[in-house]
Amino acid sequence: MSNAVSPDPTTRAAKIITRCRELARITDIPGETTRLFLSPATSDAHTLISWWMRQAGLESRTDDAGNLRAVRRSGKPDAPTLVLFSHIDTVPNAGAFDGPLGVLLGLAAIEELGATALPFHIELIAFAEEEGARFGFPFLSSLAVVGKLDAAMLDRKDKQGISVAEAIRSFGLDPTRIPETCPLAPSTFAAIEVHIEQGPVLEKEDASLAVVEAIVGQSRFELTFEGQANHAGTTPMALRHDALVAAAQWIVEVEQYAANYKQLVATVGRVDAYPGATNIVPAKVHATLDVRHPKDESRHAAVAHLLTKAESSATHRGVKVSAKAMAEQKAVNLDRTLTTALHRAAERAGFDAEPMFSGAGHDSMILAPHVPTTMLFVRSPRGLSHHPDENVREEDVEAALATLLNLLIHLHPHKISE
Amino acid sequence: MSNAVSPDPTTRAAKIITRCRELARITDIPGETTRLFLSPATSDAHTLISWWMRQAGLESRTDDAGNLRAVRRSGKPDAPTLVLFSHIDTVPNAGAFDGPLGVLLGLAAIEELGATALPFHIELIAFAEEEGARFGFPFLSSLAVVGKLDAAMLDRKDKQGISVAEAIRSFGLDPTRIPETCPLAPSTFAAIEVHIEQGPVLEKEDASLAVVEAIVGQSRFELTFEGQANHAGTTPMALRHDALVAAAQWIVEVEQYAANYKQLVATVGRVDAYPGATNIVPAKVHATLDVRHPKDESRHAAVAHLLTKAESSATHRGVKVSAKAMAEQKAVNLDRTLTTALHRAAERAGFDAEPMFSGAGHDSMILAPHVPTTMLFVRSPRGLSHHPDENVREEDVEAALATLLNLLIHLHPHKISE
Repeated sequence: MSNAVSPDPTTRAAKIITRCRELARITDIPGETTRLFLSPATSDAHTLISWWMRQAGLESRTDDAGNLRAVRRSGKPDAPTLVLFSHIDTVPNAGAFDGPLGVLLGLAAIEELGATALPFHIELIAFAEEEGARFGFPFLSSLAVVGKLDAAMLDRKDKQGISVAEAIRSFGLDPTRIPETCPLAPSTFAAIEVHIEQGPVLEKEDASLAVVEAIVGQSRFELTFEGQANHAGTTPMALRHDALVAAAQWIVEVEQYAANYKQLVATVGRVDAYPGATNIVPAKVHATLDVRHPKDESRHAAVAHLLTKAESSATHRGVKVSAKAMAEQKAVNLDRTLTTALHRAAERAGFDAEPMFSGAGHDSMILAPHVPTTMLFVRSPRGLSHHPDENVREEDVEAALATLLNLLIHLHPHKISE
Repeated sequence: MSNAVSPDPTTRAAKIITRCRELARITDIPGETTRLFLSPATSDAHTLISWWMRQAGLESRTDDAGNLRAVRRSGKPDAPTLVLFSHIDTVPNAGAFDGPLGVLLGLAAIEELGATALPFHIELIAFAEEEGARFGFPFLSSLAVVGKLDAAMLDRKDKQGISVAEAIRSFGLDPTRIPETCPLAPSTFAAIEVHIEQGPVLEKEDASLAVVEAIVGQSRFELTFEGQANHAGTTPMALRHDALVAAAQWIVEVEQYAANYKQLVATVGRVDAYPGATNIVPAKVHATLDVRHPKDESRHAAVAHLLTKAESSATHRGVKVSAKAMAEQKAVNLDRTLTTALHRAAERAGFDAEPMFSGAGHDSMILAPHVPTTMLFVRSPRGLSHHPDENVREEDVEAALATLLNLLIHLHPHKISE
């Protein structure tokens, strides 16, 4: 738990933060914040959030994928629908804001709107699963609402051997009804997610907000460098085939190359040397590579360059290298009309919102191919996330709320591209 | 086991090789060659070697540290003693020559001497422990013969919890009698070890033999690089504190620096990155450093330089680094008069023996401070050692035998420095 001083609960931003911290006390593991998909804590979280929804005049329902949903009706019954969403599940030992901030800020916006007449319904959705912590597979909720939660996913098992379908049933829901109860309203014309940045860029730029224009594509590889084990005392440097030095030179080149391109990130997160003895020249090294860029062509070019660099660092030392593609995910562009509208709303509310791309995956990536979608990022102090010290600043939450309200008040459904 | 064609057993070198391979079949683990200190296989090895000694006219004894010893008497009873030695224990899944070659080549030399009168006795010692494989501590035998096997060493336990002293007793010996039965004869004036090179230098130089002039000193360190864990997608390159890139740059610098100094070797054999996930910038890296050089001052200078390099690679990235000294061993110069005599003997026998230093530790290092000592290295095909495919060439074994015989025939005890 953070020791941060509680913000003044009389401001509307402070109220959102207080609610996030209150929700963070609802946990599967006492003493930390761990709220897995469809766990007992999820049920308690639903009770608390639906109580807050009711106080705001909203009736909630839980769909058969476990998502808590409530609709603020427009005066016009046949109005289209705008969706505000984020998730309420967490990674193990999480902070209070990754996910819940978007849900409770959406709820606060609805409270602030009061009786203001809008030409669209607003559906607020608290997704039950985004992190992938329980079933080792993320985005189950957003996949359910876009009709992409398939039988194989329902069959995935957690560490206790319980399948997604069984977990849904244990929660009192019916997985066979997902196609009926989960889809977005057919009239949904826009979807907006407010989320903490989970990175250090806004803090570095001294800005409260960013409008996310794209979610990066990712390539993941596993490389194997194969040299020759040799005695560290009897093998002169010139006669070695050291797999670790070959890998090390490449790791430095990965950093140097990515540092030259503003939107590119490339990471070697895991490395092992075999046999791994102090006095043996390493024969084999496994290393991972994670490359992300908002443009797929740029990412492909970076991957090709970096794999060539591995080859030359290895060949130079009589070491062999092979690379195995482990995962690939295309970049997702968010809706240009919506991102422009969000920029203007921030401006009108008196804030600069940086244009940004998201280096992490989000539910928005799943919704974007189906409905015009965008994201608003809120500054993460110290870039910290997936950590109990994860935090937000009251001024930044106020900026996000003011921006969202401004957007809602000025948004014309027919101006959003389909 | 090697699939090499057996050499013609009619040559004297071929006979030595055949005996080494015969001894290699005596093992604690069927199907490989694993002969640990004082194991049942050691007992069988003693039986076989003492049988060969008896065929050569030598009576053997086992001292209370488990060393098998036999003396070829000079005609003059008060003559001084020259020791020929190597070890017969092995690493797990070893080859046939690391150790046994020196013992069986010494025995062959004694056989070849026949009735030749020499002004010194020759003691042949098959050390029972050099590799450190059973008790995790090497050179127990040579420490015993120079009176340095202390109580703490006798108390060390193997994986079964059996102490060195208990293992000695189980073998039918008495550890309390080590001070009586183990020491070298007081009149010992020289000690010579023939051993495979265990490295690729002679093969590279296309030479059969080397005379070892020094055994390198060693420094071992463990370094810890501490940066900051960050999301691999949301953390721009410029805002990272990547412990692995800091370590990688240093690993490359270790190679580059050592490559500039002919007698220096430096190795990073082990590396681990934490938390070790594909999508997390590494927060912490542990890496080992092994530095060896025949001159202690040069080794110290190299260590100082390399630790400074680690510091600058880390600081550059906002990473902290600390280094912990794990072990240090001083360089040991072998006896100059003996090495010169060995060079001359090789020359007279018609071979070039390279001057070399040993990058690995050997029993000679333990004996050298107590008695003039040197080593003769025999080429290791492909530099291979501690491996079932470890091998020697018949021509190289012949060169070693001819050189040793030539030395023995021309050696004058009073010319060896004390």
